[in-house]
Amino acid sequence: MPAAHHLRPLFQPLSVAVVGASREEKKLGHIIVRNIIESGFEGKVFPVNPKAEAVRGLSCYPEYSALPETPDLAIIAIPAAFILKTLEQISKKGTKHVVILSAGFKEIGDEGIKLEAEIVEYASKKGMYILGPNCLGFVTARHPINATFGQGIENTGNLRFISQSGAIATSIFDWSAFTGVGFSDFVTLGNKAVLAEHDILEYWLHETPLGSSDAELQGYHPVGLYLESITDGKKFLELAQKITKNSPMFMIKPGKSDAAKKAMQSHTGSLAGDDVVLSQALDEVGVIRCEGLEDVFDLSRLFAWTKAPTGPRIAVISNAGGPAVMSSDIIAAEGLELAEIDAATHRKLEKHLPRAASLVNPIDVLGDALADRYEQAIDTIFDEASVDAVLVLLTPQVMTQIEETASVIARLAKKHPKPIICSFMGGSQILKGEEILNAAHIPSFRFPERAIRALGKMWWWQNWRTEQEFAPAKKITSAPTKNLTTNHISKILKTAQKQKRTTLDNFETNTILDILGLNTPHTAVVKSFEEAELFTKNVGAPVVLKLSAPGLLHKADVGGVIAGIRTRDELKKAFSRLETASKKLSKKQDFSIQIQIQQQVESGIEVLVGIKRDPTFGSIVLIGAGGSLAEMVGDTQITLAPKNSSELKRLLGSTKIGTLLSGYRGSKAYAIDQLLEVIVQLQSLLHHDQLSEFEINPVIVTKDTAWVVDGKAVLSSTDS
Amino acid sequence: MPAAHHLRPLFQPLSVAVVGASREEKKLGHIIVRNIIESGFEGKVFPVNPKAEAVRGLSCYPEYSALPETPDLAIIAIPAAFILKTLEQISKKGTKHVVILSAGFKEIGDEGIKLEAEIVEYASKKGMYILGPNCLGFVTARHPINATFGQGIENTGNLRFISQSGAIATSIFDWSAFTGVGFSDFVTLGNKAVLAEHDILEYWLHETPLGSSDAELQGYHPVGLYLESITDGKKFLELAQKITKNSPMFMIKPGKSDAAKKAMQSHTGSLAGDDVVLSQALDEVGVIRCEGLEDVFDLSRLFAWTKAPTGPRIAVISNAGGPAVMSSDIIAAEGLELAEIDAATHRKLEKHLPRAASLVNPIDVLGDALADRYEQAIDTIFDEASVDAVLVLLTPQVMTQIEETASVIARLAKKHPKPIICSFMGGSQILKGEEILNAAHIPSFRFPERAIRALGKMWWWQNWRTEQEFAPAKKITSAPTKNLTTNHISKILKTAQKQKRTTLDNFETNTILDILGLNTPHTAVVKSFEEAELFTKNVGAPVVLKLSAPGLLHKADVGGVIAGIRTRDELKKAFSRLETASKKLSKKQDFSIQIQIQQQVESGIEVLVGIKRDPTFGSIVLIGAGGSLAEMVGDTQITLAPKNSSELKRLLGSTKIGTLLSGYRGSKAYAIDQLLEVIVQLQSLLHHDQLSEFEINPVIVTKDTAWVVDGKAVLSSTDS
Repeated sequence: MPAAHHLRPLFQPLSVAVVGASREEKKLGHIIVRNIIESGFEGKVFPVNPKAEAVRGLSCYPEYSALPETPDLAIIAIPAAFILKTLEQISKKGTKHVVILSAGFKEIGDEGIKLEAEIVEYASKKGMYILGPNCLGFVTARHPINATFGQGIENTGNLRFISQSGAIATSIFDWSAFTGVGFSDFVTLGNKAVLAEHDILEYWLHETPLGSSDAELQGYHPVGLYLESITDGKKFLELAQKITKNSPMFMIKPGKSDAAKKAMQSHTGSLAGDDVVLSQALDEVGVIRCEGLEDVFDLSRLFAWTKAPTGPRIAVISNAGGPAVMSSDIIAAEGLELAEIDAATHRKLEKHLPRAASLVNPIDVLGDALADRYEQAIDTIFDEASVDAVLVLLTPQVMTQIEETASVIARLAKKHPKPIICSFMGGSQILKGEEILNAAHIPSFRFPERAIRALGKMWWWQNWRTEQEFAPAKKITSAPTKNLTTNHISKILKTAQKQKRTTLDNFETNTILDILGLNTPHTAVVKSFEEAELFTKNVGAPVVLKLSAPGLLHKADVGGVIAGIRTRDELKKAFSRLETASKKLSKKQDFSIQIQIQQQVESGIEVLVGIKRDPTFGSIVLIGAGGSLAEMVGDTQITLAPKNSSELKRLLGSTKIGTLLSGYRGSKAYAIDQLLEVIVQLQSLLHHDQLSEFEINPVIVTKDTAWVVDGKAVLSSTDS
Repeated sequence: MPAAHHLRPLFQPLSVAVVGASREEKKLGHIIVRNIIESGFEGKVFPVNPKAEAVRGLSCYPEYSALPETPDLAIIAIPAAFILKTLEQISKKGTKHVVILSAGFKEIGDEGIKLEAEIVEYASKKGMYILGPNCLGFVTARHPINATFGQGIENTGNLRFISQSGAIATSIFDWSAFTGVGFSDFVTLGNKAVLAEHDILEYWLHETPLGSSDAELQGYHPVGLYLESITDGKKFLELAQKITKNSPMFMIKPGKSDAAKKAMQSHTGSLAGDDVVLSQALDEVGVIRCEGLEDVFDLSRLFAWTKAPTGPRIAVISNAGGPAVMSSDIIAAEGLELAEIDAATHRKLEKHLPRAASLVNPIDVLGDALADRYEQAIDTIFDEASVDAVLVLLTPQVMTQIEETASVIARLAKKHPKPIICSFMGGSQILKGEEILNAAHIPSFRFPERAIRALGKMWWWQNWRTEQEFAPAKKITSAPTKNLTTNHISKILKTAQKQKRTTLDNFETNTILDILGLNTPHTAVVKSFEEAELFTKNVGAPVVLKLSAPGLLHKADVGGVIAGIRTRDELKKAFSRLETASKKLSKKQDFSIQIQIQQQVESGIEVLVGIKRDPTFGSIVLIGAGGSLAEMVGDTQITLAPKNSSELKRLLGSTKIGTLLSGYRGSKAYAIDQLLEVIVQLQSLLHHDQLSEFEINPVIVTKDTAWVVDGKAVLSSTDS
């Protein structure tokens, strides 16, 4: 047993006081007392209410200070305005752990925000751990207590759940009662004034190492999450990575469209919306992201009752051809495979099934199949080595023995270790079959696509987990070693920030690229045609002329780039055109514009690379098609930074531009290593807090080298 | 009343004979008789069975010829082997309409295929209309008869359904009984030996014009389809287009992954799998494609009970913030919008709702909302002009009045004409609320995402239908007018086909492009360097050298294209390289290789265009990114051919390359009209049955013109 965690008194209290306990049966202050008593809580319960003698047979105390001992946990159900005062009493008495059920805080606006801030400050001063406010409370099964004012969990099992929303919790409670899916812990967070999801995860990880040997049949403790915000992205990912090694985690987080609405400061911003970062971050630490509530319910059922398959190969047994064919489609789409049945199994099936049955997976036992035919087919297929999981489909045809078939499945599931899931399709008739399956803890879904989708996600996790075992340990939070030339970069950034600028100009950007040792074309600022001519003579034609100015992010958009200048005449024309343009622009805007000349690099594949700070997860790297393709192709992939060369190579491989770079249709590969080096170097800029993003678009990758042509730097706002 | 349709005696028989009627209660031959009698069929029923006196109280006849009159319909439930003989008797008696329930035909292999062919031949000779074999029969509510051996439909309504699978039908029957969703007609097709889906659709269209004034509250008769194959794609689309003008159609067709597995003969083939063609075809005639069975059930419920919203603006009323936020996400993703509530409605809501409630859509009536608060909010929001449909979300919180709220919704739905749908989230507790909603025909879904997804599909159809009213009539089946220069093209194609070739060589392809009047660069076959040099002098450098040979589809893959040849020296080197290559290749392959020279066109945007025959729907047009981008970008869009210039322009607009062509980031647009003209001309090749596909990749589109550079023609196999 590990040393006691500081949250143990909260979730495993020996005594609980309910402040605001009420005699009125419909009030929260009554329901919470009733729930605690009826949930089999073995400790002491102290109702606190100055106006009541007793609540549900328990003597009431007029105030917290009057309690005969110091309770481990105080649960508060009084109006928001009185809570701070009560906390003072609670603290004085020595109770450190508090659940605030009451609403009326942050969620109601200014007044509530102020109240909540006061509570947070007080809790911090006194070292109090508060769950809520505006939450439904929590339930645990191991040390039984239903400290919610909801239905609670009627069935115990190995699922753990954290829900920021109390309402979602009530839906899950009702569903759990109906289906028999059991939970070991259910915590609602509410406003997360003090305790947030990572505190709960850390407590669980400490108290009962997830996936330890005491976990039930699946060997793991699944964790489901409904979160509207992530309080500390880095901590969350660190903990998630530890948990997903042994136990599955699945999560739903709404708010995609809000994220999409956020104004884009720059091109990079538009390609990597926050929600994309979240999905990628979860992906990297093995957390399944749910796309809807139905996914949450489906995965809860599946993870609660079934262990993950050890491979992707599914055998489908059906009494109808149509749903079987549909299942094949979805199996492919969800990253699973149809198991290939070998000759010996084929012969065994032949013995048991009628001639017209389809013995090729998906196996059609035909519409007149009774329970015994299902039994023979399932029993045989379980023994087939190439099968990792079995999916049984049933339509209620005229001969179909729905309940008997369900019982057969329940029996066989006990006999064989491989996972089996079902889809009984219909309404009234199949309900009884479903009840039998639920009672036997066989996951059953109304539609085959739901069953397969959930199984696909389960396999994704299992596969991720296996890959992790063989992969070198990842460091999510460390930054690359400090660069010796960092001082000069800092100076550039600080100067720009002092000038309240939000971006760097081309010259500054190029200086940084040079300091990083990247392969940039020769560049100079030229004041006259003669200077430009001299430059061209020195580095050789062709050259590119560009306008350069701070704040001028998309230069191509204002016609500020002229490429392919080969002759003196072309240079003259181009220079005078930009000169005119720069004068015009200078008048309109309040910044000065320079003309820049650059050696034109040989043609190659244009790649976009970038780094960007993310408010939740620290920082990310972007790779994708560059130049004018960037938006057309929509190819940009992101990953949490920092990543090493080989990790980046894998990411590049998942982009379309990566396919081109690796030598499309047998042509010679491009200088991928040099490209990766650019990104590795770029990541060293993440030391500089002044930098919010740095994008290079394009890196021109030829067969021999990677030219860094056009950088763009956005500074962090000075307030932060 | 229109003239009687030839299928009327099948679906509205005055008398029915059951051949194979049985006294054994579990046999099909018994169940079918029982179902017909118990379904309220008002005509006469004649059981035919030589061994029985009576079945369910009806006197049996020993054989068909012994019947006292000629029945309108014969239903057959005897073993497959005896059916042909029976058909002869039936025909002799004068019955033209037959349902064959028996299995044992095409689906069991060679023997059954033969039996089925005999029946088809006999039916064709005698003019008999046969439903099945291997089907579950049919049910109609208007002229009540349950001519299936399944549960049938317990609830009558306005839904019509065609299912190729009897098993799927049994699932829907069971679900219908459970939910109360009602059908007017349900037809199972089985093997479709004679009658197929288009026959049923045509009959429905003729008998009761779909969407005519006698349709029920929604003003339409929705049609649901479960099809594993489409028998006649063109007929199907013609009928679908007529039906979807007034009534929604939704369809599920499995087999995507099978389609994907089909060997690809060529690049074009890989980009436009059959399944993509189906999706596009359905899209063009306004048929909703379902992605899973759950979609089918959800849309059945929604279309049976609700009329389509007249706009996309949804108001969400919820007693929980979390699900409301999630709904906003999905509303955006499904092509719907959150309605904007105006100030007057806002004030009205303020009066009824507590201060903490969110009055901005999605409207949060808070967790303690009783039925009356829901009522006030819903009633108010129904009157808001900007709201097209209302979605009510409910989580079973401690105060929530589930049944009362359901009753309130039922009452308000009657009062207001706008559609209202619900999602009550949970298990046991919400069941009673759902029952009330079902009884009132308010569509309710377990998860908000399901409700919104279904509503989104409904709105897609409604919107499509409105657009059709204002769009010029489309002709799906006509071909472009015959080209005068067609003879020469025919000659080329026929010659190639006689030589058993599957493709044309470059020279033939270019000749066709020239005949079509397309802007091709000067091209010649050259036998010597000197010929190549002369050509270059005439048309001017740069030039391109290529290898040309029948069967050599992807020339770039074998290094057979050398571009950018500017000097005599480069030409010499290139020629000798190709000469060597062609010798090598000629040895390996059994075809001769020529060297082709071509004027190199100025650079531009490379576009792929093509035409292709589709086995189901006739022919299609492809447009997308061309050149080496083609596969990387995955941009190809398809449409049914032929299409006129403005229709093609719309299609082009939906591609990424279309965005580039229209002048990316404010630069001048490319020669789109010339590109469209290329496609219009290309479609005229569809006259030539010998041609299976013709692809131009790339068309190089510059700011002034569209150069047709590289054509590729695949011939139809000569067997067809």
